[in-house]
Amino acid sequence: MDKNQFLQKSLPWTYLVTDRRICGDRSLFSVVEKALRGGVNVVQYREKEASTRQMIAEAGKIHELCRKYGALFIVNDRIDVALAVKAPGVHLGQEDMSLPMARRILGSDVIIGISASSVEEAQTAEKDGADYVGASAVFATPTKEEAPALGLAGLAQISYALSIPVVAIGGIHRGNAADVMAAGSSGVAVVSAVMAAEDPEEAARLLAKAIGSAEG
Amino acid sequence: MDKNQFLQKSLPWTYLVTDRRICGDRSLFSVVEKALRGGVNVVQYREKEASTRQMIAEAGKIHELCRKYGALFIVNDRIDVALAVKAPGVHLGQEDMSLPMARRILGSDVIIGISASSVEEAQTAEKDGADYVGASAVFATPTKEEAPALGLAGLAQISYALSIPVVAIGGIHRGNAADVMAAGSSGVAVVSAVMAAEDPEEAARLLAKAIGSAEG
Ligand code: NI
Repeated sequence: MDKNQFLQKSLPWTYLVTDRRICGDRSLFSVVEKALRGGVNVVQYREKEASTRQMIAEAGKIHELCRKYGALFIVNDRIDVALAVKAPGVHLGQEDMSLPMARRILGSDVIIGISASSVEEAQTAEKDGADYVGASAVFATPTKEEAPALGLAGLAQISYALSIPVVAIGGIHRGNAADVMAAGSSGVAVVSAVMAAEDPEEAARLLAKAIGSAEG
Repeated sequence: MDKNQFLQKSLPWTYLVTDRRICGDRSLFSVVEKALRGGVNVVQYREKEASTRQMIAEAGKIHELCRKYGALFIVNDRIDVALAVKAPGVHLGQEDMSLPMARRILGSDVIIGISASSVEEAQTAEKDGADYVGASAVFATPTKEEAPALGLAGLAQISYALSIPVVAIGGIHRGNAADVMAAGSSGVAVVSAVMAAEDPEEAARLLAKAIGSAEG
């Protein structure tokens, strides 16, 4: 199965972005595994405060968990870590390596996602060969306040302007996930709604159900 | 000229490791260029607190400066940044990507240096295919205090145990550089002795003279 068939077949996405700092006294791996059991089908490893060696060790473990549950594994920012663990995908923000450079290094088989906070950024990403776009932030969040939130209308504009999948991120939880999907997105990415949940498995299950990616 | 011929021909090394934080109100680039003019023949870009995009931009500029002055350019830790700017070399600490993994990703043409603080670490690096070893710390420094300093005797042990070049780092300046070279090292690496000098060009010139790498 080639990359595009795989992408289409795996949609819609219940997409988890990791953040070790909000796992409390639980290990990053136990939270991620519970989330996978609950129905997350994409995991993005995004950790900033660790040595490269530690990142490679952690990314390798999460990649393995993703294989076990048939989920897609993506590394945020760090092409070196992605190459080290042979990750099938990477996700790049506007302050990370440029998409053309990443494509030159990674080749055409690796899935590359790009964060975009406007129709223009999203269209540039598609034109440059992105495989999906992460539209952010859909709703205002306490952690990210660089740009004004897109809102459902802004998300819909991006979704309908692109042919590639658009994953919504920013302030999304199971209570608004159905509205976000109705705005044309191909999936929903969350951090705290699952990582910080008391029961990450149940949180993932309810979220996946709202998104429509639940199997059961 | 193949990698090993190049390495041998460029020795001994007057090796500058960058640190933007000690440049004062001068730009990183102006300090590096002055150092190159003074006789530095290897520059290692080592910056931790920047976005990947900023690192790539800075590393690209310093690579260009190195080309202009015929110096070797090396990227610390970040294989992704090295690949992005096509750096001829990388330097890896014991908390960075492992040497075998880096070699698999970078191929045999890229120079890989490894930090070692014991004969055992240095021999492992040589056996795994390192092109040079950075022996650290030779003298105690206020910034790095993980392991006891090697001293000149410890440096000599590492130098004589290896066939590949050994570059000494840690607490070295023009006053002790000749002793360090006499202990068998193939070069000397400095950070503050040049980066924080009032006149980086003059500091580099005097250091290169003490090391024996000065051309004039
Ligand atoms: Ni070059």
